Amino acid sequence: MYIGIDLGGTNIAAGLVSDAGELLVKNSVPTLRERCAEEIVRDMAELSGRLIAEYGAKPEDIKGVGVGCPGMVDYATGKVVHLTNIKMDDFDLAGEFRKTLDIPVYVENDANCAALGEYVAAGEGADSFMLVTLGTGVGCGIVLGGKLFRGFNGAASEAGHMTLVYGGEQCNCGKKGCWEAYASVTALIRQTKEAMEAHPESSMNADAAERGKVSGRTAFECARAGDRAAAEVVERYAEYVADGIVSLENIFQPEIISVGGGISREGEYLLNPVMEYINKNRFNKYMDKTKIVTAKLHNDAGIIGAAMAAR
Amino acid sequence: MYIGIDLGGTNIAAGLVSDAGELLVKNSVPTLRERCAEEIVRDMAELSGRLIAEYGAKPEDIKGVGVGCPGMVDYATGKVVHLTNIKMDDFDLAGEFRKTLDIPVYVENDANCAALGEYVAAGEGADSFMLVTLGTGVGCGIVLGGKLFRGFNGAASEAGHMTLVYGGEQCNCGKKGCWEAYASVTALIRQTKEAMEAHPESSMNADAAERGKVSGRTAFECARAGDRAAAEVVERYAEYVADGIVSLENIFQPEIISVGGGISREGEYLLNPVMEYINKNRFNKYMDKTKIVTAKLHNDAGIIGAAMAAR
Repeated sequence: MYIGIDLGGTNIAAGLVSDAGELLVKNSVPTLRERCAEEIVRDMAELSGRLIAEYGAKPEDIKGVGVGCPGMVDYATGKVVHLTNIKMDDFDLAGEFRKTLDIPVYVENDANCAALGEYVAAGEGADSFMLVTLGTGVGCGIVLGGKLFRGFNGAASEAGHMTLVYGGEQCNCGKKGCWEAYASVTALIRQTKEAMEAHPESSMNADAAERGKVSGRTAFECARAGDRAAAEVVERYAEYVADGIVSLENIFQPEIISVGGGISREGEYLLNPVMEYINKNRFNKYMDKTKIVTAKLHNDAGIIGAAMAAR
Repeated sequence: MYIGIDLGGTNIAAGLVSDAGELLVKNSVPTLRERCAEEIVRDMAELSGRLIAEYGAKPEDIKGVGVGCPGMVDYATGKVVHLTNIKMDDFDLAGEFRKTLDIPVYVENDANCAALGEYVAAGEGADSFMLVTLGTGVGCGIVLGGKLFRGFNGAASEAGHMTLVYGGEQCNCGKKGCWEAYASVTALIRQTKEAMEAHPESSMNADAAERGKVSGRTAFECARAGDRAAAEVVERYAEYVADGIVSLENIFQPEIISVGGGISREGEYLLNPVMEYINKNRFNKYMDKTKIVTAKLHNDAGIIGAAMAAR
């Protein structure tokens, strides 16, 4: 039995996970990310302690704690190098955690954890596996031969920052035209707003007014209700997603590419146009093809994957 | 001692290679690619036999023969699946070779062989290594943990067919905007010709008239002689090359990316602007950085790498 912790900018989510990757019990507390690192880590450890008690277990039943962090970590030492939205620079997270709850702590990047979680959920049989997460950004995690692929320095799998449109939209990373700037939900919302302005007659405007905001679902829902401008947004967005997947497939030829993130809940409404584009544009015409699937664990991938990283 | 064979559309090049990757002796014969597969393979075996005799060795001194093929192969069975410019479909190359010269034969993709050759030449110490070959197309080979990375189906590392410009130039692979359609020497020649037309005053026009053709060197040589339009071609081409390298680095974080192909002989004239762009645009700002180098073996990479694949 392991503990998996998904440290996010808004919440700290944690769960007890069986050796086989089953989520047994979970809970969360707010991150309150303006606080100092020590307080955040103490809350992580206390939440873990409560989960153990709640499940009727003892600390010595837990073989390890995995923590998925939104940024760069040094998994060999358990130190956080730099997080994007939380003040934790060059910080000994593992050491700090064990002051409150003395269980071995393993620190990993959150996208890597999610990839490991989805890999385990997909059956652990795949020779090679990639998870692409369409969210605020585009995250990616790579599992080769059952192990996370991290590059020589631990910083690999930033596939969201491969170029899709040379010289295109400015990305947060400093480069222009990154896949993330077209295929993230943030980008989809931007594309939706542009279409709403260009098509004042589109039902997307009424939908957004009613709900009080434009979301990643606005275009999908209006497209399903027959709105033409919304259908165009969905189609173009699916092609941006698909074109990046084709690039990854051409480079890696992984056995499975899993598409995750909230927008993957659109299921076939996203996957069908994505597959149509991929089948037309993939390089590999002779050998077995990469399987493209939608993620299974959704929000629990981070918790389960962090636990599997500790395993 | 091994034999390495680089099967090209124009020539069959072969060499005797030491266990450590030193080229001992080499020779070549024309491929005459319109011939049937059996005749081409017999010539490969006969050329190998002559090299062994020329070096004063015996067939039993050779531990294996590696053959690098321009296309898709099944390295597990020694069969060629499909080659781009030579008629060899679903063909038992290893079996056919051994009818003439009975030494174990190992069949591999030529870009993979070149990557393995440059990896060995770089010292074999790198945790992860990529060779990007800028030629008629853009080839790529990936070595992880000392072994070729092939994907689950043997068809990986087609990085030339990741997208650089979404919806851009039509690529031979069927997709639009591939890196290869901007960063290959074929693309550089196209870009040079476009600049020559737009700038009739450019010395590139006189240079091409004198030599009877536009080549990958035209823009580089005229730029060095002070031609402004040529300098712009070189700068833009270097940025296309660099942007693709940044994408690969962001995805893989390999310890070394080596840039090969004839155009890599331009050395610092290519590498300096490439590095300037990479340093400005790479995602990784906190961890150790990928080393970008130019290839060492040039034309011999295929022979040496094929031998190392057999090793």
